[in-house]
Amino acid sequence: MSWKAFGDWGTSNLRLYRIEQSGTVSATTQGPGIGSLTQGAHAALRDALDTLAGGAMAADPPSEIRLCGMAGSRTGLAEAPYALCPADAEQWAREAIPLTFDGIALRIAAGLACDDLPDVMRGEEAQIFGAIAMSPDRGMGRSVHVLPGTHSKWAVVEDGRITGFRTFLSGELFALLQSRSTLLALGETGTPAEEDAGFAAGLDRANGGDGLAAALFATRSLQLRAGRSRRWATGFLSGLIIGDEVQAMRRLAGLPQSVSLIGAPALSARYVQALGAAGVAVQCLDGAACALKGLELLDVVC
Amino acid sequence: MSWKAFGDWGTSNLRLYRIEQSGTVSATTQGPGIGSLTQGAHAALRDALDTLAGGAMAADPPSEIRLCGMAGSRTGLAEAPYALCPADAEQWAREAIPLTFDGIALRIAAGLACDDLPDVMRGEEAQIFGAIAMSPDRGMGRSVHVLPGTHSKWAVVEDGRITGFRTFLSGELFALLQSRSTLLALGETGTPAEEDAGFAAGLDRANGGDGLAAALFATRSLQLRAGRSRRWATGFLSGLIIGDEVQAMRRLAGLPQSVSLIGAPALSARYVQALGAAGVAVQCLDGAACALKGLELLDVVC
Repeated sequence: MSWKAFGDWGTSNLRLYRIEQSGTVSATTQGPGIGSLTQGAHAALRDALDTLAGGAMAADPPSEIRLCGMAGSRTGLAEAPYALCPADAEQWAREAIPLTFDGIALRIAAGLACDDLPDVMRGEEAQIFGAIAMSPDRGMGRSVHVLPGTHSKWAVVEDGRITGFRTFLSGELFALLQSRSTLLALGETGTPAEEDAGFAAGLDRANGGDGLAAALFATRSLQLRAGRSRRWATGFLSGLIIGDEVQAMRRLAGLPQSVSLIGAPALSARYVQALGAAGVAVQCLDGAACALKGLELLDVVC
Repeated sequence: MSWKAFGDWGTSNLRLYRIEQSGTVSATTQGPGIGSLTQGAHAALRDALDTLAGGAMAADPPSEIRLCGMAGSRTGLAEAPYALCPADAEQWAREAIPLTFDGIALRIAAGLACDDLPDVMRGEEAQIFGAIAMSPDRGMGRSVHVLPGTHSKWAVVEDGRITGFRTFLSGELFALLQSRSTLLALGETGTPAEEDAGFAAGLDRANGGDGLAAALFATRSLQLRAGRSRRWATGFLSGLIIGDEVQAMRRLAGLPQSVSLIGAPALSARYVQALGAAGVAVQCLDGAACALKGLELLDVVC
């Protein structure tokens, strides 16, 4: 039985899928991200493929491999170019690089760049083009797509083309400040309910307009002076950072009436709350499904 | 010969001074900060005192020790209270806690809190009260004091009292992003001149009004897409963070025509440039001299 391996290989994780001839996803596996490889990228990919082949890669190899994300970065498997905004799915797909991997056809998708800022993405563009392909209107008119994560992206789609985007350091900033700063090394642990209350307070504070840098230290002083727990302060920090991202987009371009939110459920829930508080309606899409659909689009030039 | 030991014991460093009966500083020593103690605080202080005594603490101990800063924090030598804004030097001095250290009189200065935000400081208030005491007008009228550092402070002084202040995470944020983020792990090293050019570009970008969180990722994309070196990007990151601090103060309260800048020379130079670019005149004061003068003020209630 012939099968294909499609994967989204980011900084933090490799997610690899076994796609049967019918188009069904019959198995999934995970591996280390490009930023956390302990062996070479080649060996890590071979391990993941072998898992999908049920340990029988030699007897039952995939007919084809397609990857998007940091697999195509300078530190990945092989450097793929960036397509330039504005770009539609076909223009993007054409920039993918064709290689072979242990004798198997391998295609690594291009990233996407907008050079006015400049700004770059690798992997999110596959999800956005996938979302466009799955939407009833095929991305006609104007829509805004939000992709939360380590490097959160806001992208504008006009008539099927990604015309511009902006990256926020939100996920990475939260992780650094949570684990390595002086902001949370204090006081009682607290409860999950306190974390939720802290998140709401952080959103509220972010809406106050004093800006992220001026508000961050309050995470510490609220523990020292207002008896807030560490869980509360963790929620507050998250609310500040996500709320500030929404406020920054308001200042930059005004907020749209609605957005598509492409991502994992837990993080998406926080963004739904932040966007809702700012009066933005949200349609949630599954990030993995969007990425697989995006990788299918590489067909247009295969 | 009787002498006193005055010290500013912060998160990152202990700076301890030997003050002779004449008031002259005859020796200085450094030790680990409260945040980087490898032994207990007690032992670290005894080591530093012994250095100032020329190794003869038993024969020639100081008559008195005074400390400000994180020495008075929960994780320091003993927890000192916070005086509350608005506070003048006398109100602050009265909150110092009297202890003994190996039989020697020890006084740990209070911190300062403003509870509307809330916000807190430990150590900077000694420098500000010291600066007020040394100024020709003794802090009459209204003035603004800027203290760059790990946790940068902007304080308003009105008629000799500190009436409010705001903390920015600038120094800590820069250190974390420089050493532990994905923003600078790229490309050619570059030159010091490139770092200066990057700093100016970062200041300029911070003035663009798109906010810190939206601008940080450009540190990475400018290396990927515009051929900037790592030194350039390091300067850019610093310019973004310091520039954003100045812009945040503009949004919060408007910028004053002039400020007193209290701090170490290298970091102060960056702030002079940032404040100058924003049209603010700067008077530079030496942080160590201000702290020692502030510790002298504890006399008012000794």
